[in-house]
Amino acid sequence: MENIHKYSEIYKEGLLENIIPFWTKHSVDKKFGGFLSCLDRDGTVIDTDKGLWQIGRFSWVYATLYNEVEQRQEWLDLAKNGVEFLDKHGFDKDGRMFFVVDREGNPIRKRRYVFSESFAAIAYAAYFKATGEEIYAEKARFCFDTYFRYCTTPGLIAPKLTENRKTRGMGGPMIGIATAQELRKNLNDDNYTHYIDNWLEEIQRYFINEEYQAVMEVVGENGEFIDHFDGRTLNPGHAIEGAWFVMQEAICRNKDEKLIQLGTKMLDWMWEIGWDKEYGGMLYFRDIKGLPVQEYWHDMKFWWPHNETIIATLMAYELTGDKKYEEWHKKVHDWAFSHFPDKEHGEWYGYLHRDGRVSVPLKGNIWKGLFHIPRMYLMAWQICERIKNR
Amino acid sequence: MENIHKYSEIYKEGLLENIIPFWTKHSVDKKFGGFLSCLDRDGTVIDTDKGLWQIGRFSWVYATLYNEVEQRQEWLDLAKNGVEFLDKHGFDKDGRMFFVVDREGNPIRKRRYVFSESFAAIAYAAYFKATGEEIYAEKARFCFDTYFRYCTTPGLIAPKLTENRKTRGMGGPMIGIATAQELRKNLNDDNYTHYIDNWLEEIQRYFINEEYQAVMEVVGENGEFIDHFDGRTLNPGHAIEGAWFVMQEAICRNKDEKLIQLGTKMLDWMWEIGWDKEYGGMLYFRDIKGLPVQEYWHDMKFWWPHNETIIATLMAYELTGDKKYEEWHKKVHDWAFSHFPDKEHGEWYGYLHRDGRVSVPLKGNIWKGLFHIPRMYLMAWQICERIKNR
Repeated sequence: MENIHKYSEIYKEGLLENIIPFWTKHSVDKKFGGFLSCLDRDGTVIDTDKGLWQIGRFSWVYATLYNEVEQRQEWLDLAKNGVEFLDKHGFDKDGRMFFVVDREGNPIRKRRYVFSESFAAIAYAAYFKATGEEIYAEKARFCFDTYFRYCTTPGLIAPKLTENRKTRGMGGPMIGIATAQELRKNLNDDNYTHYIDNWLEEIQRYFINEEYQAVMEVVGENGEFIDHFDGRTLNPGHAIEGAWFVMQEAICRNKDEKLIQLGTKMLDWMWEIGWDKEYGGMLYFRDIKGLPVQEYWHDMKFWWPHNETIIATLMAYELTGDKKYEEWHKKVHDWAFSHFPDKEHGEWYGYLHRDGRVSVPLKGNIWKGLFHIPRMYLMAWQICERIKNR
Repeated sequence: MENIHKYSEIYKEGLLENIIPFWTKHSVDKKFGGFLSCLDRDGTVIDTDKGLWQIGRFSWVYATLYNEVEQRQEWLDLAKNGVEFLDKHGFDKDGRMFFVVDREGNPIRKRRYVFSESFAAIAYAAYFKATGEEIYAEKARFCFDTYFRYCTTPGLIAPKLTENRKTRGMGGPMIGIATAQELRKNLNDDNYTHYIDNWLEEIQRYFINEEYQAVMEVVGENGEFIDHFDGRTLNPGHAIEGAWFVMQEAICRNKDEKLIQLGTKMLDWMWEIGWDKEYGGMLYFRDIKGLPVQEYWHDMKFWWPHNETIIATLMAYELTGDKKYEEWHKKVHDWAFSHFPDKEHGEWYGYLHRDGRVSVPLKGNIWKGLFHIPRMYLMAWQICERIKNR
């Protein structure tokens, strides 16, 4: 692969000299603990509410840097600053987690679904790995169990729609796989492979649509195609994130050929659907039949689909050596790096218009914090190193 | 006012030769009753689900055309086609209405809030006026009572946030006023004035922010400014719609001076905040402090804020004779009419980018149907006629 040394350096340096320092400088709440993720372009806090997704994700990032890059005390302390906020303020009396709390940690919003739990699970698992404190392994298992139970028990997450339209979403099994992978690794517990097998089976059975050559986001209870706006709406960045979770599992299983085929197929299909042939970059939503999409921001360019596509194309190249993935990686890397980074204040903008103009200059909100971007820098750096050292 | 004859003709002809024929041709469901609002650019149905907001709104439009323009049998039949679908498929066993049903009328989604009820109330009231059938006056009262009870009984609409952040929204009192105005008119019942008084009082007490010179969308329980994304987010088109509901009430009360002042103040403030000085048109969301907005489509141009601003500026001109409103009306009329109408297939696009380019070519979905556009054409035509005949 051309420029592998250059790429490796870009990802390493970007992570350690730009992304991590930006958030470490601006987001740590020294008064009430946890992290403030709602930041303006220059790092000024513009909303003090704390999303629990973000607290879990920040904590996971710092603990993972400690585990996988270098045992810096600062990173361990920051991970601790996150998990202790989760301990103190993350949980309702029923064991479920909140979605948003205020700066002091008072509950503001709880949701039906369980992604706060999935991100807390990976945070606790990485923090256990970093510290060896058994209580955090237990907390990780507890959060994972909640996630698993809610995702797999029909009706436990109150459905938005009536029983006349029973649906299943790609998000549950997909995030489930990534969460189980983290727990397996950091708790050193192969029992999580069993969960991964089931979720891989669910994805293949219900969400891989051979007729349309697409990864579905929402299908009927038995995988039926739902020919309405919601059922037709594809989320290429999300599906491509799922593609690399599958490829990651192929790597964990000694380059399992079937999983490589599944993961690259998902990537191939969704690159074709999601890559914007006119302006470059990854479109947010597409209709499977090419019809108009109902969501207003369908043609915007968000940061995270680009992060996920950079990881997926690089991983596909690592696993197959196919030149096509080298080219796709270059395309998405070049587009992302020429549009998202803020050269003046550091970090990335999150929300661009289709043609790459900045829509809103903020660096963080309840959805955008320290997660997709550093995970991309870290994983892409690690993949580059593996390719270099072959 | 310059060009008043031309404007009157544009609105009349647009309503009767373009907007109404488009929907009458494409949206009537002759098989299952009701209306199909999810239409592609050329009128092709792209989703057969039926939003109850839209069924109520379509029915109101056809009945109102019958009551206020001409007693065409076709319009009465179409109104009947809507209200009978509401009768058959709109209501759950608890008396609350659904949000979406499928083509056949089977329930698909019910929501916490009660806007299906407000639109059904005005549909039934207008249909009662058209037919004199007492049962429809009763149904209108029943839906209004549900709306009123849910909007004014704390906790009856399950709050999204915890008791640590009790909020109140502008939508409830604002839609309440417009709904009560319709019932008062079409049921010929002045008792509804009492409700309007209370909601006007609520708006003045809680949502008129003199410090920022802005109409708030969401405030604390006692009108406190909530300095978070949601509390700072202004919706100029929505507030301007509220402004003309207030001015409409001034007209009903013999040009009540205080209400004229309140309505024009709301318009003045929100025009200043919402009018896009760079590209023209009404921006969707603005932050009260000029900070970044969290909603992704903040700078898009939607059809309905333009409809509401055309009505409000014209009504303000009618009530005050102030040249400023004549100029504003011309500005928003010219921008809207040069960007939204589809010259090939008729009707208006709904979703434009900030610079006026079409984002998505559909004509209707679960949110866009036969309502804001025909209401604007009809009311603007009526206002022009009143100005002409002075």
